[in-house]
Amino acid sequence: MKTARTVAEMRALRGQLAGPVGFVPTMGFLHQGHLSLVDRARAENASVVVSIFVNPTQFGPREDYQTYPRDLQRDMAMLESSTDVLFLPDAPEMYPPGFNTWVEVAGITDRLEGASRPGHFRGVATVVAKLFNIVQPHRAYFGQKDAQQLAVIKKVVSDLNMPLEVIGLPTLREPDGLAMSSRNTYLNPEQRRAATVLYRALEMARQSRRSGERDASRLRAGMLALVQQEPQARVDYVSIADPNTLEELEEIDRPALASMAVWIGTTRLIDNTVLE
Amino acid sequence: MKTARTVAEMRALRGQLAGPVGFVPTMGFLHQGHLSLVDRARAENASVVVSIFVNPTQFGPREDYQTYPRDLQRDMAMLESSTDVLFLPDAPEMYPPGFNTWVEVAGITDRLEGASRPGHFRGVATVVAKLFNIVQPHRAYFGQKDAQQLAVIKKVVSDLNMPLEVIGLPTLREPDGLAMSSRNTYLNPEQRRAATVLYRALEMARQSRRSGERDASRLRAGMLALVQQEPQARVDYVSIADPNTLEELEEIDRPALASMAVWIGTTRLIDNTVLE
Repeated sequence: MKTARTVAEMRALRGQLAGPVGFVPTMGFLHQGHLSLVDRARAENASVVVSIFVNPTQFGPREDYQTYPRDLQRDMAMLESSTDVLFLPDAPEMYPPGFNTWVEVAGITDRLEGASRPGHFRGVATVVAKLFNIVQPHRAYFGQKDAQQLAVIKKVVSDLNMPLEVIGLPTLREPDGLAMSSRNTYLNPEQRRAATVLYRALEMARQSRRSGERDASRLRAGMLALVQQEPQARVDYVSIADPNTLEELEEIDRPALASMAVWIGTTRLIDNTVLE
Repeated sequence: MKTARTVAEMRALRGQLAGPVGFVPTMGFLHQGHLSLVDRARAENASVVVSIFVNPTQFGPREDYQTYPRDLQRDMAMLESSTDVLFLPDAPEMYPPGFNTWVEVAGITDRLEGASRPGHFRGVATVVAKLFNIVQPHRAYFGQKDAQQLAVIKKVVSDLNMPLEVIGLPTLREPDGLAMSSRNTYLNPEQRRAATVLYRALEMARQSRRSGERDASRLRAGMLALVQQEPQARVDYVSIADPNTLEELEEIDRPALASMAVWIGTTRLIDNTVLE
């Protein structure tokens, strides 16, 4: 595995890679979910590039940019056997003085995470466009846990005609159902137990839907009630939405994205599932 | 010369081109200024792609999108001998239903053309990013007549790490100094004579600067007075600005961009020169 810390180094190494190239952009502190993306990239491409960059522009002023977990040594050990090039830019390399160009997706960014985290998706869309232009992959891999992020990135690539394929892969979960996330490390043991409430609420929605429930309001109310039974949890949003437009549904007359954001103490967790 | 009318056709033809590829994006109704860009692209690259697309998103609601001059037959004849691929998308091909992603450059777009034409540079930055992603050129060529547009495009490419070089080439002029522009066709003979006032004002600024004038306010006032002597002309703006930031200068202590926008009847013309 070679490492590049500057755009110029990355471009030079990219020029030596055999194609097609698979790319997994990450913020580091890797878990099995990330590795499943790398494995798929490895299986589907001749070369694999991974980036680790905690992107400041997608964090709000009161969010956890400074405290976001970092462990580069461990990450590198996890990637060593499966990655050709690891791209490790620092913030001034990605955002030099005078940087002033932004990629903005309207519409689907107004809702859910976009409503709770103003500017978040502008930061995501911009850094992903930059990384795609630097790495020039044929395929890029993202987890479905960040369902709205995946939708935003697919929209950027489609609307701006970027020459690559964006692939979303299933969320990996701990044995008790908690979606894998670098932010799970923030949880103390009591919070870690409480955090399963997201999965339990989503499972309840799936079972309810399977039993024939078509009223989205009742589903949302049921999920909300379940989460509120957990004293450690505070709901940010609970949503039953169209998976493409992310508009809230009244009647579930198509596959629906059930998603939620919940605070467990000072940690904000998200999770989702598609109700077929 | 081959022509592509869809993104898919353009990508297929692009795959057959020998590199490096030079690209000249235009809105058609070509003149010698455009052809000088094509000639340079031809000289510096193995293959040349030209696009003709009157981009609706860079026109304001009361601007001349509908009436912008078009003559595809003539354009094609002018390009035939020097161009490998002509890309001719229509508006729904570039902006399909649901299109909702924009490239925005802050800062330098607030001034001059950006101030007079809200949203103009958002449309320019977005369509140029799309065209670059579709054509994937090694070099792209633009005229310096649209000096602010050139600055915006260079900023997009630099900030978003797009893998190409942007090259600006000198404005071509008619024998009486009028900058070549597709919009000159709007002018009746009397207006055509009046339109030389832009060049005369810029020349006056150059001579004044050469004579040692360092006070930007006096230069602007002189240009303004000269244009106001022309009864057909109505000034939109007159500017002496830093060529990079486009901020207005007080003292001319560096190379300065002298630029202006002037209405001649219902036709808005722009021109500029660099005062060394």
